[in-house]
Amino acid sequence: MQHGPDVPARRTRVVIVGCGFGGLEAARALRDAPVDITLVDRTNHHLFQPLLYQVATAGLSAPAIAAPVRHLFRKQSNVTTLLGEVASIDAQQHLVHLAGDGALPYDHLVVSAGATHSYFGRDDWAPLAPGLKTLDDAFEIRRRVLLAFEAAEKESDPARRSDWLTFVVIGGGPTGVEMAGTLAEIARHTLPGEFRRIDPASARVLLVEGSPRVLQAMPEDLSRRAAQQLKKLGVEVRTDSRVTSIDARGLAVHPAGGAPYRIPSRCIVWAAGVAASPLGRQLAQATGTQVDRAGRVLVEPDLSLPGHPEISVVGDLAAARSFVPGREPAPVPGVSPAAKQMGRLAATNLLHRLAGEATEAFRYRDYGNLATIGRNAAVVDLTMPWGRHVKFSGYPAWLFWLFAHIWFLIGFRNRIVVLFDWAAAYWSHQRYARVVTDIAPAPLDG
Amino acid sequence: MQHGPDVPARRTRVVIVGCGFGGLEAARALRDAPVDITLVDRTNHHLFQPLLYQVATAGLSAPAIAAPVRHLFRKQSNVTTLLGEVASIDAQQHLVHLAGDGALPYDHLVVSAGATHSYFGRDDWAPLAPGLKTLDDAFEIRRRVLLAFEAAEKESDPARRSDWLTFVVIGGGPTGVEMAGTLAEIARHTLPGEFRRIDPASARVLLVEGSPRVLQAMPEDLSRRAAQQLKKLGVEVRTDSRVTSIDARGLAVHPAGGAPYRIPSRCIVWAAGVAASPLGRQLAQATGTQVDRAGRVLVEPDLSLPGHPEISVVGDLAAARSFVPGREPAPVPGVSPAAKQMGRLAATNLLHRLAGEATEAFRYRDYGNLATIGRNAAVVDLTMPWGRHVKFSGYPAWLFWLFAHIWFLIGFRNRIVVLFDWAAAYWSHQRYARVVTDIAPAPLDG
Repeated sequence: MQHGPDVPARRTRVVIVGCGFGGLEAARALRDAPVDITLVDRTNHHLFQPLLYQVATAGLSAPAIAAPVRHLFRKQSNVTTLLGEVASIDAQQHLVHLAGDGALPYDHLVVSAGATHSYFGRDDWAPLAPGLKTLDDAFEIRRRVLLAFEAAEKESDPARRSDWLTFVVIGGGPTGVEMAGTLAEIARHTLPGEFRRIDPASARVLLVEGSPRVLQAMPEDLSRRAAQQLKKLGVEVRTDSRVTSIDARGLAVHPAGGAPYRIPSRCIVWAAGVAASPLGRQLAQATGTQVDRAGRVLVEPDLSLPGHPEISVVGDLAAARSFVPGREPAPVPGVSPAAKQMGRLAATNLLHRLAGEATEAFRYRDYGNLATIGRNAAVVDLTMPWGRHVKFSGYPAWLFWLFAHIWFLIGFRNRIVVLFDWAAAYWSHQRYARVVTDIAPAPLDG
Repeated sequence: MQHGPDVPARRTRVVIVGCGFGGLEAARALRDAPVDITLVDRTNHHLFQPLLYQVATAGLSAPAIAAPVRHLFRKQSNVTTLLGEVASIDAQQHLVHLAGDGALPYDHLVVSAGATHSYFGRDDWAPLAPGLKTLDDAFEIRRRVLLAFEAAEKESDPARRSDWLTFVVIGGGPTGVEMAGTLAEIARHTLPGEFRRIDPASARVLLVEGSPRVLQAMPEDLSRRAAQQLKKLGVEVRTDSRVTSIDARGLAVHPAGGAPYRIPSRCIVWAAGVAASPLGRQLAQATGTQVDRAGRVLVEPDLSLPGHPEISVVGDLAAARSFVPGREPAPVPGVSPAAKQMGRLAATNLLHRLAGEATEAFRYRDYGNLATIGRNAAVVDLTMPWGRHVKFSGYPAWLFWLFAHIWFLIGFRNRIVVLFDWAAAYWSHQRYARVVTDIAPAPLDG
């Protein structure tokens, strides 16, 4: 680009869509770059999603895991934060169109729009079995769980009472496992003594998983330990079981090689499927690139779009591969460390391009895998830098999980708040965020 | 009541409607009484309303000021908590009818249904200028305040931008004063540095009051000090000014002896009128008693209903008078200490009746009056037991207000959480509960 002596050089305009782990890290990594960044998100906060299930189960308040984006970047003067919903991306004109709010021109674009739940084509299940991706989702699940116990207390018919006291979590990934474990903990340890007509400890919590084991991303022995710990907490684990229908009064389950049966339940949580944000498909169409079955955009090794080096896709929206010299490219899991690393590489490659240098291929540093199950129960599979795996479970794994999560929380104050709330909850068995403001039954409750 | 030797004596059934300060204290005061208490409320929490404005201004999270009722009474075995909305009271059949959930029979009834906002017959103003009585109200105000700054940052037209940056609080009572003071604090101290296109400190905060002074329940000199402190914080105080219309773009104000004028504003908060719960009118009709202009039920000196000694009305729903020997009966202010004292007396008188004793007249112990205005700003008017008043304002009054409120918060954990959040907010000038999950404009925003 050329310009005369009295026309100031225009700074490179970078637009980052989405303020999850990927977008946040990309913006931070550009802190000293001579670029003007516009960070656009449809909420005003960065959500620490690994702890979202704690809001859904009344263990933490929303502000403890949500940091205002604007505040996070107050001292990074090259970032402008904008609250808005991205309607579409025009890759020809280099414009990000906002819903009702005009458009943002860009020279470089980083798309980090994340993922949402997928009901595998059964979107009619969404109101019957809410998923857990946003704070609003967490509030809705918290409301349903707490109201189910309240409705059971008011119900005089034993069969209907037991339907209210049956909680079903669909999907045995990390979210499903921690939801089921925590629900069992609430029923067994938090609520007993507070009701006069029902015994909350008599509540059933079922975890339904289509594949043969929970926590499929983990080594098999840790999956087995996780299932054992779930059972110890009181969760009925039903693996190899496919959900075939859901209605307002329960669900139908088809076990592999067995006869289908029905589970009556008034509180069902969906933790089964994840699909990329619809923005991925729109972006792929606009740029002539491909998406995979989950709607994730197929990216080049350097995370850019084929034919569009000025656009990078990071985080859960990207079907990225990890390139390690001498090995086959490997798929990258949809976890927050991967999203952060992609965000940082997108920023690095952007600087390479500005300097006219070659870009780098993405290489995922896998530090391991950890999942919590409930009080004193977790599984950890650490990958050491020299390649060995260290696996442990139970109380030490739970402590490790706890401090790892507090450590990675955004902001000193949030760490203190979460630590304090957990210490209080641990010793008292209580959960303090039990707020229900709207007692009307859900529209489809019948 | 007589019964044979093999029929167990039925315990006296007490129903308490509402779990505000009055209902909570009545239930607690009956902890050792041989009665079965059913405590019914339409939310699952006791709300510490004096700090609700802190949720509306993003200073505290909801769980910090809301304690689950069920948990508060877990160890008081004669209390059954029920989540439900009271539809009507049948004083002839001694039944409390719940919306859709059957009816509760009672021998004694304590009604503590509280108050809501009153728009003085202009209910169409409600969506344009939300009031502050429930957590949902607080979330809505928080959302509007935070989104107004976001909209201003996106707005390129200077006039429209300034409309977004004009905040109007209607009503100069304690709630209006603390809302206006805190909004000014947010604009001047919390947000500066976080925006790139607007200067949040340029926001205007106006407090509009119909009468000649703010904090009318206070002595005149403290009202004057409060107005001075508000001005120091940057609030424009407009007393003697009546609001004549509100629409989505602003409001019309008529100053006493002056010409009406318009204030363009996109964020208006209603703190002007309080009306008793509609249940008061229904109860009065059912029992042939009277309500006052604000819909409060006129009660006997012992807080029971005329002709219905088995029904007591306490808290903001009661038009109670205080009886001090040798003095004229005096009206009782709608403050939480009065509600608590009424709740306790209703319980005491219930026990008197069970024992066949005479009941006591209500005597309000006035310990004084305090109101906060903002950072380091408050006014205190203490009534000493020997009748003297001690008045102070500014920083010492603010400290006094702070510790008094933390002291009276329900539960040790909540006290610690609020103290920690305030300490963090005080030193950092930050407000951490800045969560907005829904960025759609309000239906009437235009």
